Amino acid sequence: MENTKIGRPRCEKAQQAVMKATHELLNEKGGSGLTIEGIAKRAKVGKPTIYRWWPSLADIVLDVVLRQAGTDIPVIKFESLEKTLHEFLRQSMKATVDWGGAHLRFLIAHAQKDEDFRKRFRNNFSLTRRSVLLSIFQQAVERGEISPEQNLEILTDLIFGSMWYRLLIGHAPMDMSFAEELTEITIQITKNKSTS
Amino acid sequence: MENTKIGRPRCEKAQQAVMKATHELLNEKGGSGLTIEGIAKRAKVGKPTIYRWWPSLADIVLDVVLRQAGTDIPVIKFESLEKTLHEFLRQSMKATVDWGGAHLRFLIAHAQKDEDFRKRFRNNFSLTRRSVLLSIFQQAVERGEISPEQNLEILTDLIFGSMWYRLLIGHAPMDMSFAEELTEITIQITKNKSTS
Repeated sequence: MENTKIGRPRCEKAQQAVMKATHELLNEKGGSGLTIEGIAKRAKVGKPTIYRWWPSLADIVLDVVLRQAGTDIPVIKFESLEKTLHEFLRQSMKATVDWGGAHLRFLIAHAQKDEDFRKRFRNNFSLTRRSVLLSIFQQAVERGEISPEQNLEILTDLIFGSMWYRLLIGHAPMDMSFAEELTEITIQITKNKSTS
Repeated sequence: MENTKIGRPRCEKAQQAVMKATHELLNEKGGSGLTIEGIAKRAKVGKPTIYRWWPSLADIVLDVVLRQAGTDIPVIKFESLEKTLHEFLRQSMKATVDWGGAHLRFLIAHAQKDEDFRKRFRNNFSLTRRSVLLSIFQQAVERGEISPEQNLEILTDLIFGSMWYRLLIGHAPMDMSFAEELTEITIQITKNKSTS
């Protein structure tokens, strides 16, 4: 992640240090102890500098997630609905367990207290993730694996909803069996519609 | 809600005043401005008295939700899976829109910052709600409307998950069409399994 290329603008290096520190602190301590002070200290950057770039603590975390998701989650080539969806869900579980769980829990909690941030989170994170899953479903429609009558928005709500629900409530794990079970039940839904 | 029966212990009256104040303030202003100070003022009760009964602000809100859900959401008599599930979902949407949305958003946000509270929320609210939906599904299994092979836990995750997801992200409404669409897709899932 660290780029030491000579001539890189100083502020970008500092911004990267802030994001790196935020990411590390979330992984080490979870979201409940995260503060601008702690990040500033770890990143060796002044608090006013941080506030110049980000309107709130949650916006730093959102940037970390967007950047990490961009580098960590590869674009999936469509094979069959089952294979592609399974791969998408495996990646999502892995990212959540490996590095993103504390980040996402922090973001959704903050979004409930700050309506402007909720919009930024929805537009920059949720709608982007939805569009990836919707495009998988749309490709399956084009190949006749899902009926054109299927409500894809509801299907997308079910998948992302159940993942958020497990992450937030914690009654069951975000693991590879869950990825498999979600794939299986989606295939069950789409098969019924296509043969009805 | 107010009970003026003579001889009722004084502390129970004060507890009810605290819960009533909390409920009103959440409906008027949402969760972001809710404080123990505000509740104490509205309920005409001292802050130390409140802290004697509840370990945190979120625990008052949880008590309000549990009490309200207990009186507001009637037990549903099982007819068919479709009718019973539809009624369950209509009631859940109605309770969320009419009075519970701000309460639930406040609770889930707090649960992300306080692991002990998260357990209390999970055990007292989520698992209770899950058991109601699971019992509807189990009755449908007994009547042959759902295959005994169907994974009911995943089905429950899909339903509650998608409702939480819409409530928290806010990309689409919690309305009666949503209750209908969720019923329809659940029937689609169960039909496929029972005929396969």
